Amino acid sequence: MALIVQKYGGTSVGSPDRIKNVARRVAKFKAQGHDLVVVVSAMSGETNRLIALAKEIQTNPDPRELDVIVSTGEQVTIGLLVMALKEQGLDAVSYTGAQVKILTDSAHTKARIQHIDDANMRADLNAGRVVVVAGFQGVDAQGNITTLGRGGSDTSGVALAAALKADECQIYTDVDGVYTTDPRVVPEARKLKTITFEEMLEMASLGSKILQIRSVEFAGKYNVKLRVLSSFQEEGEGTLITFEEDTDMEKPVISGIAFNRDEARINVIGVPDKPGIAYQILGPVADANIDVDMIIQNVGQDGTTDFSFTVPKGELNRAIKVLEGVQSQIGGKSVSGDDKICKVSIVGVGMRSHVGVASTMFRTLAEEGINIQMISTSEIKISVVVDEKYLELAVRVLHKAFGLDQQG
Amino acid sequence: MALIVQKYGGTSVGSPDRIKNVARRVAKFKAQGHDLVVVVSAMSGETNRLIALAKEIQTNPDPRELDVIVSTGEQVTIGLLVMALKEQGLDAVSYTGAQVKILTDSAHTKARIQHIDDANMRADLNAGRVVVVAGFQGVDAQGNITTLGRGGSDTSGVALAAALKADECQIYTDVDGVYTTDPRVVPEARKLKTITFEEMLEMASLGSKILQIRSVEFAGKYNVKLRVLSSFQEEGEGTLITFEEDTDMEKPVISGIAFNRDEARINVIGVPDKPGIAYQILGPVADANIDVDMIIQNVGQDGTTDFSFTVPKGELNRAIKVLEGVQSQIGGKSVSGDDKICKVSIVGVGMRSHVGVASTMFRTLAEEGINIQMISTSEIKISVVVDEKYLELAVRVLHKAFGLDQQG
Repeated sequence: MALIVQKYGGTSVGSPDRIKNVARRVAKFKAQGHDLVVVVSAMSGETNRLIALAKEIQTNPDPRELDVIVSTGEQVTIGLLVMALKEQGLDAVSYTGAQVKILTDSAHTKARIQHIDDANMRADLNAGRVVVVAGFQGVDAQGNITTLGRGGSDTSGVALAAALKADECQIYTDVDGVYTTDPRVVPEARKLKTITFEEMLEMASLGSKILQIRSVEFAGKYNVKLRVLSSFQEEGEGTLITFEEDTDMEKPVISGIAFNRDEARINVIGVPDKPGIAYQILGPVADANIDVDMIIQNVGQDGTTDFSFTVPKGELNRAIKVLEGVQSQIGGKSVSGDDKICKVSIVGVGMRSHVGVASTMFRTLAEEGINIQMISTSEIKISVVVDEKYLELAVRVLHKAFGLDQQG
Repeated sequence: MALIVQKYGGTSVGSPDRIKNVARRVAKFKAQGHDLVVVVSAMSGETNRLIALAKEIQTNPDPRELDVIVSTGEQVTIGLLVMALKEQGLDAVSYTGAQVKILTDSAHTKARIQHIDDANMRADLNAGRVVVVAGFQGVDAQGNITTLGRGGSDTSGVALAAALKADECQIYTDVDGVYTTDPRVVPEARKLKTITFEEMLEMASLGSKILQIRSVEFAGKYNVKLRVLSSFQEEGEGTLITFEEDTDMEKPVISGIAFNRDEARINVIGVPDKPGIAYQILGPVADANIDVDMIIQNVGQDGTTDFSFTVPKGELNRAIKVLEGVQSQIGGKSVSGDDKICKVSIVGVGMRSHVGVASTMFRTLAEEGINIQMISTSEIKISVVVDEKYLELAVRVLHKAFGLDQQG
């Protein structure tokens, strides 16, 4: 007898048949006596179709009107899911974001939730109804329709769970949980029963694209019990995201290994080693709207320094052009780029209390003859940049070295 | 400097290019100094697509949820049209029915408008914005999304014009006005500059499917100046629907000739001529949800009467079955049907003050050897049922006999 918020993404509701499957799953939980609030995305492909339609009219669509258009995707799904639930013999009712009301600021296409009114949903739950809510959308104080940006349905689910003080927020996706690493790279990869909130943040931002980062932050802030499950498997408990550090001594030091093939490295060699140089280099790159990930600055010789950072592969050429344009001001010797690199990261809160994690990582890579080009560390993560040809090898040997293929 | 409400149907906004055309037309009116409220339908085909999607889940879709789904069609169009207006350099803003708010009763899929709040639209108009409103939809007192039923966008346009006390409500459609009859049958058919509200009601219900009848009733009730125009022609004043009878002596007695090929006749012969017999015959037909149009009862011989009425052609067999099932109770001699008939009607408020209209009609048909099977009259209309092979001939000779091809 719990209150559960379930969120189903676009693939899970991608066709009438899949919507019927979701209804059957909801009915199963309902039959167990739980109260259910179900948050859904637009059917897969629908949001892209609507954006393309808008772009046929305006190359840069008006943000307010784009939200009016795009929000219809989820609105169609909520109606269809309620119909499917009624076919299952359940009583159910749909809500748009505005109907709930999910109050947001007025930043169209990337609005942030400010408050959720739970009165109407609560009344429906008390009357035994399944409540179906359109994800990804809200309404501002003036009554304008807003959207939370891509992946915002996860955030909707977590925010509703927080507002309703739900016992659990279940995110159904096309994977059945969070793995120690990508099973396509390491067949021995294991599904984690639990992962801490901070580890999940690092895993998600490093390319294990399971949950939208903002939804995880939201869950942390409001202490929402969050679980990732597969919408295509009948059984399985998925992965629970926890907020207390596991005191279990058996818990491995490292929880998982993430990687990213989509980065390129830029070296700016021989720039004067003086205050403000980092800003002089990265300022123009940021102005060109290019995301920068890792940043390394080494002391060089003769009062100069070497400066390296990574950007998305697709932005490499543009970033180099930007830097060449300001090279005379910066005074560097050369600007060069390398898109044949990848980033491999080990993540784990256990790192905090265990020394020697970094040296284990570096020794393991050295034993395989893998040269480390860049190193970056945070409290619960160590990332290295290596030649991209070593990606699979690096992930496999690290997975083994930290015993990730052994624990049950 | 007028306040004009314009309504564009699904064909007029059927593609991004057509939406851009609508925006250009709106910009032209705006440049003339008018204030504009634009009501739009869903892009053609969209409503049917959404209904089909719902029917994949539920054979008889839940009405509340069907409204949630179907109302997204217009919601997409309003966003697209505002974008197109902005591309024309105009300031504009979109409103769903709920945002306006167009308050309706809770009769989902066929709701009736109860009140329209004009405060927000008025503020936008005063700020120089074009207001774009989703037709066909509203919201009930509990905040549920409702729709007005097929063709409801016309009603939305007229209702908004009434609420805003607009100077004119322009309905853009794929014809350029109301004609004396169908130009495909009579090439000499002329476009009417004006037609009275009552004539329009008779013409619309008789098969000249230009405007939804409810919207015309609404215009009459609230005295809205209603004009039908083509959305595909740049010029032309369309047809104005008036509410005062024209005192112009030159105005022809008859305004137009309507016809309907889609009726079938049923004869019930030799039923006892006693009170309640009409109900005994038509009651079971109505219970079977079969629409009845013309009804004629003649005194027969020997205390019996012959009873005839028309039904849609597609319902003929079902209606006959119903009657055969109750024939023993009614006591009639025989039930027979004929689907090779058609109905031809002359319509005109001038009939009221002119004698001899009926005799002119009957003489004209007789001169061509066209036998009249049934006659039905109202204050401003005379309808006859004839063999369907005479339809074109009957319409042509009547069009000429009443001088409809002559006045300018």
